[in-house]
Amino acid sequence: MSEPKREDPPNILDILRKKRNGAELAREEIEHLVRAYTDGEIPDHQVAAWLMAAHVRGLSRAETAYLTTAMLHSGERLDLSFLGVRRVDKHSTGGVGDKTSLVLAPLVAAGGLAVPMISGRGLGHTGGTLDKLEAIPGFRVNLSTAEFKRVVEQCGCAMIGQTAEIAPADRKLYQLRHFTSTIDSPPLICASIMSKKLAEDINALVLDVKTGLGAFMKSEEEAVALSELMVDTAQRTGVRAVALVTDMDQPLGRKIGNALEVEEVLDVLRGGGPSDLVELTMTLAAWMFHLGGRSATVEEGERVARELIASGAALERFRKMVELQSGDAGVVDDPRRMARARFATDIGARASGYVDAMECELIGVASVFVGGGREQESDAVDPAVGIVVHKKTGDAVQEGEALCTVLYNSEEKMERARALLERSFHVQAERPGERHAIVRRTIRSV
Amino acid sequence: MSEPKREDPPNILDILRKKRNGAELAREEIEHLVRAYTDGEIPDHQVAAWLMAAHVRGLSRAETAYLTTAMLHSGERLDLSFLGVRRVDKHSTGGVGDKTSLVLAPLVAAGGLAVPMISGRGLGHTGGTLDKLEAIPGFRVNLSTAEFKRVVEQCGCAMIGQTAEIAPADRKLYQLRHFTSTIDSPPLICASIMSKKLAEDINALVLDVKTGLGAFMKSEEEAVALSELMVDTAQRTGVRAVALVTDMDQPLGRKIGNALEVEEVLDVLRGGGPSDLVELTMTLAAWMFHLGGRSATVEEGERVARELIASGAALERFRKMVELQSGDAGVVDDPRRMARARFATDIGARASGYVDAMECELIGVASVFVGGGREQESDAVDPAVGIVVHKKTGDAVQEGEALCTVLYNSEEKMERARALLERSFHVQAERPGERHAIVRRTIRSV
Repeated sequence: MSEPKREDPPNILDILRKKRNGAELAREEIEHLVRAYTDGEIPDHQVAAWLMAAHVRGLSRAETAYLTTAMLHSGERLDLSFLGVRRVDKHSTGGVGDKTSLVLAPLVAAGGLAVPMISGRGLGHTGGTLDKLEAIPGFRVNLSTAEFKRVVEQCGCAMIGQTAEIAPADRKLYQLRHFTSTIDSPPLICASIMSKKLAEDINALVLDVKTGLGAFMKSEEEAVALSELMVDTAQRTGVRAVALVTDMDQPLGRKIGNALEVEEVLDVLRGGGPSDLVELTMTLAAWMFHLGGRSATVEEGERVARELIASGAALERFRKMVELQSGDAGVVDDPRRMARARFATDIGARASGYVDAMECELIGVASVFVGGGREQESDAVDPAVGIVVHKKTGDAVQEGEALCTVLYNSEEKMERARALLERSFHVQAERPGERHAIVRRTIRSV
Repeated sequence: MSEPKREDPPNILDILRKKRNGAELAREEIEHLVRAYTDGEIPDHQVAAWLMAAHVRGLSRAETAYLTTAMLHSGERLDLSFLGVRRVDKHSTGGVGDKTSLVLAPLVAAGGLAVPMISGRGLGHTGGTLDKLEAIPGFRVNLSTAEFKRVVEQCGCAMIGQTAEIAPADRKLYQLRHFTSTIDSPPLICASIMSKKLAEDINALVLDVKTGLGAFMKSEEEAVALSELMVDTAQRTGVRAVALVTDMDQPLGRKIGNALEVEEVLDVLRGGGPSDLVELTMTLAAWMFHLGGRSATVEEGERVARELIASGAALERFRKMVELQSGDAGVVDDPRRMARARFATDIGARASGYVDAMECELIGVASVFVGGGREQESDAVDPAVGIVVHKKTGDAVQEGEALCTVLYNSEEKMERARALLERSFHVQAERPGERHAIVRRTIRSV
């Protein structure tokens, strides 16, 4: 009933009105919003309205950084300075067959940097690092903070899930975004990712921002915009960062499914593996070495990475991490120690020609349908099942030849996956033109 | 995880996504939203997000009509066809000193139309019809639907508050709008007003849309836009309507406060009263008669209205309504039977000159501060207190002469009001130019 005074503390109704009208919020307003919501002082419905206003009106670079920092400060921030080495991490926005993290953590640790990696589970049609790790019998992803620190100290890397102590504001906000159709907002995505990554006490971060038919961001423009926002946010919070906008028009590598992807990771760690997966992994590792101060240039970083693969140092570091996280290290030498699917069936081409395009998202959904991911949050994941892709874009195929193989334990689930896979490979008579390079754009702070 | 099918029932996440992206919602989507929210199937936070999306993106004319109708159908709709005469009502968007409803209901009823008027309480700096009526000792505004119908049948008009049965969706949505800074959205305002008015089973509606310093809509453009929206919504739902955009740069009439305003209403019903109040009331009555089919033209409607005042028929109808609603009808002849303030103090001019402008909203807030309205919803209203305005825009004033008089029961409350009133009258040396006409614009459907 009276005009608000300059000295008044931030008020949620004013914050809502300002963002609704497209005005820029002050740092203390965003801090109030996040703190009071996390503490239960502001109810869901007011924050729901704020999320919608932020989605429609957008957030400035400064607001995005304030939000990220406020979410970070809603919980615990690790202190890894005792390690005495630089900490670097990589984050991917999610794709199909994207298993680079499992190579990168031991590889970069073998190069002398620390990789304190906190990852997620599969989301929608994309796989999750934690689900893949759990395909290794006994592997524990739910380490306490103290255990996590000890593993990083002992082998230079550790891979766990988000703890309750890290960015609790993010968990609450993410849940609310899910129920208010405000997931796909670049500033909100950026704050969610970056608040958790900053809690790792890292010095540098390499972002793998997927774009294409199998990514959450279908257009390169969207991926570039999100990349710029995340790199800018990292810079404002004192973390060196680069974002690689990478191709997700088709699955990365040839194997999709949890145990299958661990197998392919071991191939790469042994110096083999599919060329697209190797190329991307080496490029990401190169940037991690460069931003982490291990190499003067990105090119030198890539040489370091290839040497660590060739020498077997990366593979040995992987073995050590598995042991320290209670996993069956015998898997490293014999991947058949992981759960194996009982049945396999091929999906054959209906005509001869060339694979012209792949419905990459459908292939991801097929992997979920066959049991490799979750349709409901409460679903159990079957580590054994998945898809092996034999033909990728540009490959020639004969009528009846296998485009991919489904590995499964349930006929019913396989049939649901088959229905999708049969329309996932587009075969045409003419050889298609050039494919996208795996790294489409590189965005870094200046 | 799979594409939604055409036949899928409306889904709140899709509805949120569409409105968030600025798309137009279908009738069944808006009906689902309102019905499921009223029934408690959709939680506050999802509707809060929808309200914010609707506020920022706007609603089309069609969406506004769907929303209005859905809110109407969330509750009971009166059936007044048994009356055998046309029903007409007036609604004001709220101002300071706006007491026209108390004249119009008995006046138009005396002219042979029925006026089933459902009103509200004071909101913010504006007064409320129910609070004014309750200044009449014993007057009951909370009649049951059956009692309401009986009073309308017996005297052609009745004035009550919203019942629990009428538009329950509006009560829930209004509450949520209050907490999400989404009150001042023209489509949401329109749907809130019109859903309740349509529940009265009226044939015609006259809208008094206030604009100026003492109105919720400060700019004439906003008021015109809301007027067009409400007239259009009425037309789409089969009700004849006109909107008068009227001046609220200064209080209407000279008295502000509940018993004081009833006094001024009685002055008008006796053929006296301040000219601006009389002029507006007669114009509104004229339109009610015209749209209700009682007069072929608006001009003839105004003649009818003036005759009903001159003959005393309108005053007698007021007396009858007060009696039927259990009020002390002796007030009609002796307004001093209403509660009277114990103290009075003048606010004097600090310089000689002309009143150039009035901070009309501050005068309304002063009336609230002195006890005539509510600062908190739970506050009791003091019917006795208020403000009598002696000088209005364009009036000459001598230094020390009273600009207004505060009638009060608490020194402390008076001091808070005085602080506002001392800065509410702008006095300058030169005579100001022409004032706005009381009716600035007339908007009707074609």
